[in-house]
Amino acid sequence: MKFASRMECLQDKALLNAMELTETADMISFSAGFPSPETYPVEDIKESFIQVLDHEGKEALSYCSTSGYGKLRELIAERMRDKFDVDYGTDEVVITSGSQQALDMSSMLFINKGDVVLFETPSYLGAVNALRAYEAELVALPTDYEGLVLDSLKEALDKYGERVKLIYVIPDFQNPTGRSWSTERRKEFIEFISAYDVPVIEDAAYSELCFEDRLMPPLSYYDKKGQVVYVGTFSKTFCPGLRVAWLCARKNLMENYLILKNAADLSSSAIAQRQMANYLQNHDLDAHIKWITGLYQERRDRMMEVIDREFPKEACYVVPRGGLFIWLELPEDKDSRELLRRALAEKVAFIPGGSFYPSGVKNNELRLNFSNMSYEEIEKGMTILGRLTREYLAE
Amino acid sequence: MKFASRMECLQDKALLNAMELTETADMISFSAGFPSPETYPVEDIKESFIQVLDHEGKEALSYCSTSGYGKLRELIAERMRDKFDVDYGTDEVVITSGSQQALDMSSMLFINKGDVVLFETPSYLGAVNALRAYEAELVALPTDYEGLVLDSLKEALDKYGERVKLIYVIPDFQNPTGRSWSTERRKEFIEFISAYDVPVIEDAAYSELCFEDRLMPPLSYYDKKGQVVYVGTFSKTFCPGLRVAWLCARKNLMENYLILKNAADLSSSAIAQRQMANYLQNHDLDAHIKWITGLYQERRDRMMEVIDREFPKEACYVVPRGGLFIWLELPEDKDSRELLRRALAEKVAFIPGGSFYPSGVKNNELRLNFSNMSYEEIEKGMTILGRLTREYLAE
Repeated sequence: MKFASRMECLQDKALLNAMELTETADMISFSAGFPSPETYPVEDIKESFIQVLDHEGKEALSYCSTSGYGKLRELIAERMRDKFDVDYGTDEVVITSGSQQALDMSSMLFINKGDVVLFETPSYLGAVNALRAYEAELVALPTDYEGLVLDSLKEALDKYGERVKLIYVIPDFQNPTGRSWSTERRKEFIEFISAYDVPVIEDAAYSELCFEDRLMPPLSYYDKKGQVVYVGTFSKTFCPGLRVAWLCARKNLMENYLILKNAADLSSSAIAQRQMANYLQNHDLDAHIKWITGLYQERRDRMMEVIDREFPKEACYVVPRGGLFIWLELPEDKDSRELLRRALAEKVAFIPGGSFYPSGVKNNELRLNFSNMSYEEIEKGMTILGRLTREYLAE
Repeated sequence: MKFASRMECLQDKALLNAMELTETADMISFSAGFPSPETYPVEDIKESFIQVLDHEGKEALSYCSTSGYGKLRELIAERMRDKFDVDYGTDEVVITSGSQQALDMSSMLFINKGDVVLFETPSYLGAVNALRAYEAELVALPTDYEGLVLDSLKEALDKYGERVKLIYVIPDFQNPTGRSWSTERRKEFIEFISAYDVPVIEDAAYSELCFEDRLMPPLSYYDKKGQVVYVGTFSKTFCPGLRVAWLCARKNLMENYLILKNAADLSSSAIAQRQMANYLQNHDLDAHIKWITGLYQERRDRMMEVIDREFPKEACYVVPRGGLFIWLELPEDKDSRELLRRALAEKVAFIPGGSFYPSGVKNNELRLNFSNMSYEEIEKGMTILGRLTREYLAE
């Protein structure tokens, strides 16, 4: 049987494999990209499910409207106003099955085969996969410590012209680097890009996992044109198993997103959405987030301590001020895949950095997740990884 | 902003509108395509959620593997063997977010822009939308009372040759016509199509909603080549709000489906899958199905009674032996959209048949759902519709 040509673009199974790595028993795994399961408020969630089934059982087990459960969209719009001072109407929010689906729908909406998508490098592999599935030509742009390098953006826009159909960025605590764009760069980016007719997908998966007092203003805060599509999720701040995320877009775009959501899966789970709405109304999600970010910050600190103590000084990183990851750089002639091979033999896992470069040019980096392992596991696993790195760098 | 060319193929909002029609208060609606919410086993489902959260809370709230929860896939494979005598391994089952997602993934796997898909006419609009989203050229084939007309299939295969990349069919209690293929036609179809290298999507959404003693053998029962991809769902036999469905395919295909599932939404909801598995282990789904099909059969009978009594004899239908729909045919010069306009004014809704013809050529039919309204509502709504039809046909 003959497959669509897109399948030739999708043979990279790095993400599939990464998810499987985390499932192996007695592995100390720094490869995950999700919150720590011990933080899931299981009892509160159970209470919400019971309340929803007791009071709205039939509705919760029926099809939901394509845009999603109205009350949940309203609560999300409120949160967007309260936390980020960004004003989206309830009708400018659609519930998606994880933010991955929002990325898939965005690719579907904007990409014809061969169209150019600009994105930060390295970047989230799931977005890369979603874009590849629509046979986009992926053009990676460099980032510096303040965010996307605007000169390179301008060069790419000049070079590819109208072929550029989408820009995909993660301004907060980026996956995989953990870095954030500065406020200044956000402003400059929006000022610059508003001269172009290109939509920007702002993936805010990690935005609320902030270790500092103030959240950063999202790109959509500066956007006056309705050019930014904002993608948020409860997978990182709450739990991923419900698959409840959302996409905010202005009305002209939203109408088209709804057509695609309908074609993709009719609607997201009614009961998961109602559970989430019930939780938001009866519990303090922000207090929960405060607690988990406190925990993750301590784990980040522990991981940095072990790196500083056990790793050779050639292994560098930038302190992440939120999110889930430390991005560790080895000397350029070293290959983190070789390090992974050795680490797996000692039951330690991480994701080699090359997986986050769709063109696969850099292989000397490691993505280390700090949210998922206990202090003891971080101490033990990172000590092993430090020794292996010392040995490998000495070769 | 410029949208992908697919959006030009997707401006038909009939399905979106149909779902909204059913949501209007005090409407007697025969437009739904789902089971009756009063049949949802709310208490049993609540019990399952509680058990899952008590015993597997962390796993249930985490990401699931891309293929889906192993135990659920095993239970589905067992059911496929017990009910249909079709042998799929656990690894040949992937859980999808509703069967709509299975159709979306199938379009994605096989369709390049301009490829030809053969399907029965009329057919399920959701599948048509999924295929349109990948810019397939949809070629409708006629059906007779035994199923797809094989001579027409042969003609289409001769005419379009290698451009034909997919065949989509609903052999059991089809949406919208309620008709089923005969056993003989199933055998002949598979014998015939096995000479071609074209995959067949068998949408079995209604298969278990059978009013007779024996389920029909699915096409996959006759398939020796691994050419048939089977799509099943709990949305019609249990409840749609969990969004738990499945797709069975042989290993060479499954590997590619998993890549697409991963790109689409990483994985389906872990808690919904575990709830479903828990229910299947602790309750008798077949007894539940027996009960709801008994109820639907009585409602079908009531609907047929009112049609026979109140409608002009020019309005014809074939008795559906399962499923959710009666397909009512008016004289060819009549337009069911006009009838709908009049019916809505009297708070009665149905779906005009033209919605199920992607090319929109026939407008003299109505899809009437009988699962969702009570006897009293069927009596009242169908009596009104009968009077309106008499009046309209007399003009």
